[in-house]
Amino acid sequence: VTGISVNKIKWIRSLHQKKYRDELGLFLVEGEKLVQEALQFTPQTIEFIAHTSDFEFKSSAIESVVISPSELARISSLRSPNKVLAVVKKSNDKINIDSSGLSLALDGIQDPGNFGTILRIADWFGIHDLICSKDTVEIYNPKVVQSSMGAIFRVNVHYENLGDWLKNESRPIYGALLEGKNTYQESLPKDAILLMGNEGNGISKVLIPFITNPLTIPAFGQAESLNVAVATGILVSEFKRK
Amino acid sequence: VTGISVNKIKWIRSLHQKKYRDELGLFLVEGEKLVQEALQFTPQTIEFIAHTSDFEFKSSAIESVVISPSELARISSLRSPNKVLAVVKKSNDKINIDSSGLSLALDGIQDPGNFGTILRIADWFGIHDLICSKDTVEIYNPKVVQSSMGAIFRVNVHYENLGDWLKNESRPIYGALLEGKNTYQESLPKDAILLMGNEGNGISKVLIPFITNPLTIPAFGQAESLNVAVATGILVSEFKRK
Repeated sequence: VTGISVNKIKWIRSLHQKKYRDELGLFLVEGEKLVQEALQFTPQTIEFIAHTSDFEFKSSAIESVVISPSELARISSLRSPNKVLAVVKKSNDKINIDSSGLSLALDGIQDPGNFGTILRIADWFGIHDLICSKDTVEIYNPKVVQSSMGAIFRVNVHYENLGDWLKNESRPIYGALLEGKNTYQESLPKDAILLMGNEGNGISKVLIPFITNPLTIPAFGQAESLNVAVATGILVSEFKRK
Repeated sequence: VTGISVNKIKWIRSLHQKKYRDELGLFLVEGEKLVQEALQFTPQTIEFIAHTSDFEFKSSAIESVVISPSELARISSLRSPNKVLAVVKKSNDKINIDSSGLSLALDGIQDPGNFGTILRIADWFGIHDLICSKDTVEIYNPKVVQSSMGAIFRVNVHYENLGDWLKNESRPIYGALLEGKNTYQESLPKDAILLMGNEGNGISKVLIPFITNPLTIPAFGQAESLNVAVATGILVSEFKRK
């Protein structure tokens, strides 16, 4: 099929907004690499694909159209659209959170790029569950999807009231704080929760009492803080290096 | 002084563009916190300050004007301008690169957010010198300045032909590669260069021969790569934790 209807354009463009993603239960996945990962990891969730003629795609199971680069630019949420856009169903599976191993808990991460980067860290280090406070940025935000580099298809993300969830956990809760213990001198367990706070304000006051082990990355210079995704990467690496 | 002239507005707005930053030798620093850091660390480089009435500023040495929030929005390079904008002279000091300790070499980092985040890592871990290939994003790009969180006032950034520079170095050159040695099992020296590559393409082919010690962060999951700033943070932390 060639060309795309005005209604399809409207439908896709509506998914640039959270309101319609919530209402329709759909989100956008863009670019050659990411769409290929969606096709590989969650093909049954793909509703529709629009692609330019230089993206090779053939499947009778998925509705698709061939469009021009300028049509792609009209429907894309990216500054530099790249060959293909897919409309994908949100996952409704209620997957249980692993009660062993390392889980990541995020308290109010706001920046989509940071959140996507943290998903990528979880994916790299084999962390299955990311538990987010309800005010954490939406996982289906196009910038989160893009910066996760496919991790959103492989890491389970749960939005919870973090206080309620943490209070029922039996694993030790490590929290990233500026006045915690020197991470390099701690013996970090295999089973644990690592709690990371908001970019500007850190971990909420109401969650501080749940922290059993406050952790700090030692500073050698004058910066006041590290970017939260970088701090997450360093701390997760410390848990995994043992 | 209250209000800002049309010519000053044009002058400031021209500095949103690299062309004029190059020509005038000036760049913009914005927001309460960053301008305060500029005032603290490099006051002699500040040419001009425009601020709203809720930013307290008094100095007879620096030309300044009080402006309205809507005037600030007109001259700002930020989506959410924050009280104050400063026009700052680029540093012309040719500072020698420390030949001891850990230096970071960056090969073609393109994303301003990644570069600013790496500057913040260098600042946190007390790395004095960042040596960048000539095609690395410009340090005075407003997004680099903002995401560095003040690190640009404390870390020395040099743009060099990396091949020419590396060939005269006597320190071992560690390169982040996907097929290097397991970082966790290496005994990393105090004096070293850590070379990080471009977001999509990694380290340039022409620089690979200079690497004496290829390093890899072990993967435990399915991600193909880590964000370059996150990988830099983890590797620098490995050098510093000993």
